[in-house]
Amino acid sequence: MQNFKIENPTVLHFGRNVVRDLGKTVEKYGRKVLLIYGGGSIKKNGIYDEVMGQLKQINAEVIEYAGIKPNPIVEDVNAAAEKGKQFQPDVILAVGGGSVIDSAKVLSLAIPCEHSAWRIMINMAKPTTAIPLITVLTLAATGTEMNPFAVLQNVQTHKKIGYGNPLIYPRHSFLDPAFTFSVSRDYTAYGIVDLIAHALENYFGEGDASLSDRFVYSIIREAMEYGPALLDDLQNYDLRAKIMYAATCALNGLTVFGRVSGDWGVHDIGHVLSLMYDAPHGATLSVAYPAWLKLMKGRIPDRITQLGKAVFNASNSEETISSIEGFFKSIECPVRMNEIGINEDKKPEILDMMIKNKVNGVHYKLSKEDIGRVVELMY
Amino acid sequence: MQNFKIENPTVLHFGRNVVRDLGKTVEKYGRKVLLIYGGGSIKKNGIYDEVMGQLKQINAEVIEYAGIKPNPIVEDVNAAAEKGKQFQPDVILAVGGGSVIDSAKVLSLAIPCEHSAWRIMINMAKPTTAIPLITVLTLAATGTEMNPFAVLQNVQTHKKIGYGNPLIYPRHSFLDPAFTFSVSRDYTAYGIVDLIAHALENYFGEGDASLSDRFVYSIIREAMEYGPALLDDLQNYDLRAKIMYAATCALNGLTVFGRVSGDWGVHDIGHVLSLMYDAPHGATLSVAYPAWLKLMKGRIPDRITQLGKAVFNASNSEETISSIEGFFKSIECPVRMNEIGINEDKKPEILDMMIKNKVNGVHYKLSKEDIGRVVELMY
Repeated sequence: MQNFKIENPTVLHFGRNVVRDLGKTVEKYGRKVLLIYGGGSIKKNGIYDEVMGQLKQINAEVIEYAGIKPNPIVEDVNAAAEKGKQFQPDVILAVGGGSVIDSAKVLSLAIPCEHSAWRIMINMAKPTTAIPLITVLTLAATGTEMNPFAVLQNVQTHKKIGYGNPLIYPRHSFLDPAFTFSVSRDYTAYGIVDLIAHALENYFGEGDASLSDRFVYSIIREAMEYGPALLDDLQNYDLRAKIMYAATCALNGLTVFGRVSGDWGVHDIGHVLSLMYDAPHGATLSVAYPAWLKLMKGRIPDRITQLGKAVFNASNSEETISSIEGFFKSIECPVRMNEIGINEDKKPEILDMMIKNKVNGVHYKLSKEDIGRVVELMY
Repeated sequence: MQNFKIENPTVLHFGRNVVRDLGKTVEKYGRKVLLIYGGGSIKKNGIYDEVMGQLKQINAEVIEYAGIKPNPIVEDVNAAAEKGKQFQPDVILAVGGGSVIDSAKVLSLAIPCEHSAWRIMINMAKPTTAIPLITVLTLAATGTEMNPFAVLQNVQTHKKIGYGNPLIYPRHSFLDPAFTFSVSRDYTAYGIVDLIAHALENYFGEGDASLSDRFVYSIIREAMEYGPALLDDLQNYDLRAKIMYAATCALNGLTVFGRVSGDWGVHDIGHVLSLMYDAPHGATLSVAYPAWLKLMKGRIPDRITQLGKAVFNASNSEETISSIEGFFKSIECPVRMNEIGINEDKKPEILDMMIKNKVNGVHYKLSKEDIGRVVELMY
C-alpha cells in the first residue's frame, strides 16, 4: 500500500430538501454571489426558483453566468471570469452537473488570477487563492461535487484536459436526489456509465490497495443492481439517491487511497471523441471501456479477472469484459462507434487527434499501435 | 436512505514514516504541547523517542500525562485536565490506541471548561471549544483516530459510556502501520474483532443504506482475509497497513451514511464486562456478538442472512452466526464467558449491572428478558 493522505474539505449535504440550508451556508462566505449554470433546464424544473429563493432570504447580490455547455469549454470560463473580475464575488454558486461545476472550479481560480483559465489548467500559472465555491448538484455522474478535479475543452486548440488543485474542492455541495428527477433516461444511463468508469479507472491504477479494490466492487455492484431499476422508474427518490451517492463515492478518494494514482487512459480516449464529435461523455466511455479492456486482456488478464470474479461472477478476463459490455448494452448505452454516429471513415482523423492530444494512461502506457488497436476495437 | 452530512475534518496521514511531518503539523497550532500516552510501551518500541525528536525540532514546550489504562477511566482525564488548566497547552498530542486517544478527546474539552470530564460526557455541560488534538496511533482497532467519539469509564459510579461531539475530531492523525508492529498477537486479534464489531453495529443500525451495507461487507471481508495472515506474521508492514486502514474505515462514517444511526447494543454489553472484570474490549465483543445475534435470530433473520450471503456465503441466519463465531474462534478470540475467566456464578451480578447501566441498542431495544437471555447465551 502506498502512503496517502485523506483530507477532503467538502461538506456534503445529502438528502431531501437539503437546499433549505443553502442560504445560510452561502451567507457564511458573503452576500455577493456569482451564480453559474447551464442551458436553462433549472428554470423549467423549479431548481432555479428554489435557489433564488434561498439567495433572496439573505439579500444576496447576484450576477449570473448561464449557458455552460454539456461538453464545457474554457472560453465560457474566460467570459465568466471577466464578469467576475468586475463584480468581485464573495462566493461562486454552481447549479448543475459536472460541466457547470467543473467550469465553476476553474472560474474560482481564474477570477483572482492574472492568467487565463487555460494557462491555469496547463499549469503555466500557479494560483494561490480561489473564490469559495458552493455547488448544487443536478446530475449524478462525475463526482466533481466532492473532489478537486475539473475537465474542460479548449475550442481553439482543440484539446480537452483534466486539472487538479486542492483549492478547487467545493466548500459545500448540496445533493438532493429529487433534483435529478428530470434528468432524461439516456443521460441517467450515461451517469451510471460514468460512475462505473471512475471506479474502474481507479481500479486499474498503480499500486496494491485491497480495501480500495473492494470499495470499487461495492460501487459497481450498487450501480448495476439499482441503475437498471432507476431507468425504469426515473422519479423514484430512493433509487436516485443510491445512484447519486454511488457517483460521489466513485471519485471522492475512496477508490484510490493506497494507490499511486488511477489510470485514466479510457477517459483520455473518451475526451477526444467528445471533443471531435460533441458526443456525451458517458456515451464515449461505454464505447471506449470495452475496447480498452480488450486491448489490455493480454497484458493484465489477472487484474481483469479479479474484477470479474468479484463483481460479475466471471471466471476469466473474456467473461469479465463481456459482462461489462453486456451491462452497458442492457442499459441502452452505446458500445460501438456507429451507435454514436461515428462511422468507419473517421478512423484516420480520430487516430490523428488521439496522437495530437497525447492520449495515454497514467499506469498503463499506450503506444501509437495500442491507440490504433483501441480505435479498431471501438468499431 | 436518510439524509446525512459528510463533514470529517480529520486529516489522516497514512503510511511509512508519516510521523516525520508531525513536528511541523504541531507547530501550526503552537509550541505548548500536552503529551498524553499509556503505560509506557511507547518508550520501549522507540515511538516516544521519535515523537519527542519531532517536538524538539520545533522547540516545543512539553508536559506529559502518562499512565492511561487500557480500559480508560475518567479519573485520569480529570487529573490530566488539572495539569492542563495550569499549563494551558496550544495542542494536545495523544500517542497510543483508543484508550489514550479517547481520554485525550474528553481532555481537549475539559481543559477549557469549568465542569468535570464526566459532566461533559453525561451532557450536563455543553463545551463550546476544544484544545486542538493531534494523534499518533499505535493500535488498529477503534477508529477513534477519524471520528468524534470517545468511551470512558467512571470508577466511582461504575459506569462506562460513549460520548460524541464534533469538537473532538482529531485535527490530524498519523497512522504508520509500522507503529503497530509491537502490538501482541492477542491484542492484534482483539483489534480485528473490534473493527468487525464496528462495521456490524452500523450494519444493524436503523435505516436502509445499501452502499453503506456494501462497505460493511468490504471491511469485514478485508479483515477476514488479511487478519489471520497478519496474526502469523506480526511484523508484516502491508498486512498491518490493511488492518489499520480497515479499522479506520469501519468507524469514520462510511458504514453509517444514509442510516439514522448504528445499533451499539453489543458495545453496551461489552462495556459492562470490561467495567466489572477489566476484560479487554475486543474480547468482550467476540463473546457478546454471537450471543446478541442468537438473540436476534428470531427477530431479524433476513437482515442476518443478508450479511451472511454477502460475506460468508452462508444461506441462512444460523450459518451466518456460526461463521462469525467460527471466525472469532479461528483467530483465538474468546466466544464464551469462561474463556475470559468469568464463571457461571457471576450471572446474577452481571445481569444487575447491565440493568443498572441501562444496556440497550439504539435500534433494537433490549428488554430485561432479552438481556437475561444474552447473558445465558454468552455461556
